[in-house]
Amino acid sequence: MKYLIVFAHPENKNSFQKSLLDYSKTQLIDAGHECEVSDLYAMNFNPIASKSDFKTRRDSTRLQYDREQKQAVQNSSFTDDIQDEINKLLWCDVLILQFPLYWFSMPAIMKGWIDRVFVNSLFYGAGKRFETGGSKGKRAMVSTSTGGFDTMFDSEGLLGDINVALWHIHHGMLHYTGFHVMAPFVSWAPVRVGDEQCKKYHDDYVKRLLAIGQDTPMTFHNTSDFTDDFRLKEGIVPRTPGHWKK
Amino acid sequence: MKYLIVFAHPENKNSFQKSLLDYSKTQLIDAGHECEVSDLYAMNFNPIASKSDFKTRRDSTRLQYDREQKQAVQNSSFTDDIQDEINKLLWCDVLILQFPLYWFSMPAIMKGWIDRVFVNSLFYGAGKRFETGGSKGKRAMVSTSTGGFDTMFDSEGLLGDINVALWHIHHGMLHYTGFHVMAPFVSWAPVRVGDEQCKKYHDDYVKRLLAIGQDTPMTFHNTSDFTDDFRLKEGIVPRTPGHWKK
Repeated sequence: MKYLIVFAHPENKNSFQKSLLDYSKTQLIDAGHECEVSDLYAMNFNPIASKSDFKTRRDSTRLQYDREQKQAVQNSSFTDDIQDEINKLLWCDVLILQFPLYWFSMPAIMKGWIDRVFVNSLFYGAGKRFETGGSKGKRAMVSTSTGGFDTMFDSEGLLGDINVALWHIHHGMLHYTGFHVMAPFVSWAPVRVGDEQCKKYHDDYVKRLLAIGQDTPMTFHNTSDFTDDFRLKEGIVPRTPGHWKK
Repeated sequence: MKYLIVFAHPENKNSFQKSLLDYSKTQLIDAGHECEVSDLYAMNFNPIASKSDFKTRRDSTRLQYDREQKQAVQNSSFTDDIQDEINKLLWCDVLILQFPLYWFSMPAIMKGWIDRVFVNSLFYGAGKRFETGGSKGKRAMVSTSTGGFDTMFDSEGLLGDINVALWHIHHGMLHYTGFHVMAPFVSWAPVRVGDEQCKKYHDDYVKRLLAIGQDTPMTFHNTSDFTDDFRLKEGIVPRTPGHWKK
């Protein structure tokens, strides 16, 4: 399979995350897979969505970013840095978003990758959403690491359920654009757990990556669960954090 | 009161969000308040957390970003762009995060403001969390706008409860660092609702801003709700999306 790993970490030599990246990429290739890495810090990736993202403009007097994206898809007029990432995303079977958890989300440089690369009319919009999203049929997984332990990140823990924290990514970015979303791989507190557990994270992670084609996706709602007024149909049991009842 | 509005929108002339910013700032000043605006696009704010954020380094061989932040607080060695924003944050009584909703979260340029300005040991860490966070006593509110209508953004709507989408901001960024977090002000679908409703958003928003000192904060858990093992104590009723039971 074709793996695209989008990676964001400010320390590109001596970090647990970089070690995990290097090890997993080697293992994927050794197992016969193809693997592209977008190392956003190493690329000095620009995360700021702006008018400069378009070689030509639909409306130069007023920036409506999503509408400019739509025209840029039609005219192939994205700046090269965006087009390169779009091409990788179209190419891959599996998207991995790998980052240390910053403020219950991804670092800004990766958020900017989403803002600029998940473009309107190609990946969402124009009738593309959920099961009809532009990345339908592909698989995606978050690979993250935390400062705290797993017992802090569930519904009885101090910091709450990590799947609620990550819901804006899982549902809002990945499921929304059509991916089958796998449960996240979380390396809990790598700076605290010692070398043996860190080694185990490496091995466990590679197992998850190699088995991702057979993994069971997380559950989300598809369009058919909703009425034409975008309301959950009677009898449909809520099955995402954003739809659970208090 | 002293308001700090952190604003992120790529169109700085003809946008609903910019109009809302200008109008609300004028109204706050007319009512006798002080108001600082960090217009991140206009400032060309750098959102990328990196080793370049520190004038001197604790460990130049390996970047551990939060530890460098701690030393930079002690030595006043942040780059000027970060120190300026820290000073504004220390100065204000009220923090407003104003942005169009991008992928169920804030635009990357604002995420980078959080990543770089909410620094370790001043706003969190070193015993500072929740009710002891560095911004304790201050108030904060998200002001955002959506592409979709309000009926799409509740627990029976297509896109799910917006307070679950925003939980990583409300809980993970604002409550975590000590703010009293107000319910978000959401301008639903400003590009679709027409001029009259957009005018109403302006008026409703100013009312919310002027009354923020008397507004009732959203409910979160404080440290005393948890055991020494960071687990919710028996008998404490879960009261945030991250702690609700499925």
